[in-house]
Amino acid sequence: MSTTLPNGTPAQTELPHAPTPVNLRIPGPTPVPPEVAAAGAWPMINHRGPEFEAIVTRVTDNLRYFFQTEHDVLVFPGSGSAGWEVAIVNLFSPGDAVAVITIGNFGERFALVANTFGLKVTKIPFEWGQAADPAAVGEWLRALPGLRGVLLTHNETSTGVTNDLPALTQVIHQAAPGALVVVDAVSSLGCIDLPMDALDLDVVFTGSQKGWRCPPGLMMIAFGPRGLAAADSAKLPRFFWDVKRAKKAFDKLAPPYTPPVSLWYQLDVALAMMRQEGRAAIIARHAAIGDYTRQRVQSMGLTLFADPAHASNTVTAVNAPSGQELKPLMKALRVEDGVVFAGGQDHLEGKIFRIGHLGAVQQPDITAALDALERRLK
Amino acid sequence: MSTTLPNGTPAQTELPHAPTPVNLRIPGPTPVPPEVAAAGAWPMINHRGPEFEAIVTRVTDNLRYFFQTEHDVLVFPGSGSAGWEVAIVNLFSPGDAVAVITIGNFGERFALVANTFGLKVTKIPFEWGQAADPAAVGEWLRALPGLRGVLLTHNETSTGVTNDLPALTQVIHQAAPGALVVVDAVSSLGCIDLPMDALDLDVVFTGSQKGWRCPPGLMMIAFGPRGLAAADSAKLPRFFWDVKRAKKAFDKLAPPYTPPVSLWYQLDVALAMMRQEGRAAIIARHAAIGDYTRQRVQSMGLTLFADPAHASNTVTAVNAPSGQELKPLMKALRVEDGVVFAGGQDHLEGKIFRIGHLGAVQQPDITAALDALERRLK
Repeated sequence: MSTTLPNGTPAQTELPHAPTPVNLRIPGPTPVPPEVAAAGAWPMINHRGPEFEAIVTRVTDNLRYFFQTEHDVLVFPGSGSAGWEVAIVNLFSPGDAVAVITIGNFGERFALVANTFGLKVTKIPFEWGQAADPAAVGEWLRALPGLRGVLLTHNETSTGVTNDLPALTQVIHQAAPGALVVVDAVSSLGCIDLPMDALDLDVVFTGSQKGWRCPPGLMMIAFGPRGLAAADSAKLPRFFWDVKRAKKAFDKLAPPYTPPVSLWYQLDVALAMMRQEGRAAIIARHAAIGDYTRQRVQSMGLTLFADPAHASNTVTAVNAPSGQELKPLMKALRVEDGVVFAGGQDHLEGKIFRIGHLGAVQQPDITAALDALERRLK
Repeated sequence: MSTTLPNGTPAQTELPHAPTPVNLRIPGPTPVPPEVAAAGAWPMINHRGPEFEAIVTRVTDNLRYFFQTEHDVLVFPGSGSAGWEVAIVNLFSPGDAVAVITIGNFGERFALVANTFGLKVTKIPFEWGQAADPAAVGEWLRALPGLRGVLLTHNETSTGVTNDLPALTQVIHQAAPGALVVVDAVSSLGCIDLPMDALDLDVVFTGSQKGWRCPPGLMMIAFGPRGLAAADSAKLPRFFWDVKRAKKAFDKLAPPYTPPVSLWYQLDVALAMMRQEGRAAIIARHAAIGDYTRQRVQSMGLTLFADPAHASNTVTAVNAPSGQELKPLMKALRVEDGVVFAGGQDHLEGKIFRIGHLGAVQQPDITAALDALERRLK
């Protein structure tokens, strides 16, 4: 006997099954180690009880260590995209002037969100594949008096480029004194050195599915003291994303609303694993694997999309092999070899592909993926 | 050798371990069945690939069956609280007049969110423990011309009261024609009958950790055609919560930003299990367990907080036993018996406790919890 849904779709007769594991080499979601995966199946608890308080304490302590900050790190439901919105609605009022340094698709989206919330946005754009030039940024900023904020991407996932954050923040502090500095560190934090307090950054955010070896669903954001103070006068309306409301709750170790409990379990385990490895060792591992990926890709005759001087240690963008269509190549790798790369975004669709090497990645993961790629190159 | 974090907290030397399973009888998070729990540990996939497209198709089809709607059901990261915000920012503009029918703490918070976003809010309040009186609602609404929306709670989790939704929606459609009807069904949908289209509701939302036997972290929201049309003119700024942006993406089976993949796995499995049981059987099971809970509680000499004529089939609020402090009683149950109830909220703290009986609950779960309670009553 079969039944149908109101829209005519037949009802399921069996439960969905687990996906076939693949060598997932996209820049997020990243593969989740078994210890972290297992925590996703742990039993539910009261999110207002003592067990969850202990998790909040551990997770926020460990996040401070990786953000290299003494200030507040808050965890919200959502992806990295939520970071743009949380930063903007808590710091600014409609009509506030901000500059957005864009070097790719995610910088463009950061500017789009700022525009959507009624800020007066000036984009400081650089060619995709290049990093932002600090001297040029300085010139732009000196021509933009009265800026309330400067928004930038640390690591541009769409092009595989890492901005020189120390040089950029130095020039921002000089050329736009008083402007809040907001850093999208979605695909860098936990992998690439980002000393928030030493660089005097106001807001920094990331996502659980990137360097943190967790499934997607949590967005972690730190507010320095100027950022928190800005929330007192920022006039954009907010409730779910209200950082003061969240801080007040987390200061009592209870989230402001029901948190994604199982994802918190997983972040707790992942951070403990990362603490065991240590910040410096993790950064060095990503640097070594980034180097290896770039060398290996070039050794098979492919060329890199990004300026080598600023190539990212978390994601490598590779130009499509000449004389070979990218789409069937990617499909063969996925379907026949179980190797999944990411495509290009926006005008780079079909022109580049991207290799994610962040999180719990080890060199053999990349070797296996690139062996498969090499076999399929004509 | 031990290391310390910048803030002096000692670094962990071992990984966090799973919490001890308890008989979790709070109104969410609810216990997750083994089949659903296991899916939380499944391997990651590309959220823009064919496997995730199949999940989106199944999940949205099955949600339409349970929402009893032919229209769009969208899944966002977040808890039920996100539902208030998604509904409000997509339907309204600052200064729009709305009425909020409040019968408890969650109705009050719905009104608070509407206020926060600059709507002109009139509360239609009823005593906590009572349902909204349709005749009184009609009188209020006829005295409030020009309403853009009427916001209400189907099942008030703080008091254990279920509103008579058919009677209320009938009176709303008559007394406030043209007003958008928005229903917080966070703790009712999937448990208590809620025929969205038959009642001509515009927006209805719920959360994964309630009747859906999943961990928290997903908010599911349906928009009828008037609701979607309202989003075309609503002027509140939105990006992450933008329903048109989300619909455009989900219509192509790709989420607008990285979704909580593992929670989607779990919702997919949970919905398949719920389809196997069937909507009518699930509603009947909740009705029977609600009845049983109320009878059993009264049989041990306790009294119910809610008006028996409108007592909820998903959560039962019980007055504190006379002559016995609630806090040590709840603690003994939790620590010694492994039975977790929820306390009272706001002015009901210390005066009531609440028993959750929603989701994958079966009568023996409640029997065991109430046996433990009875043993500890003086």
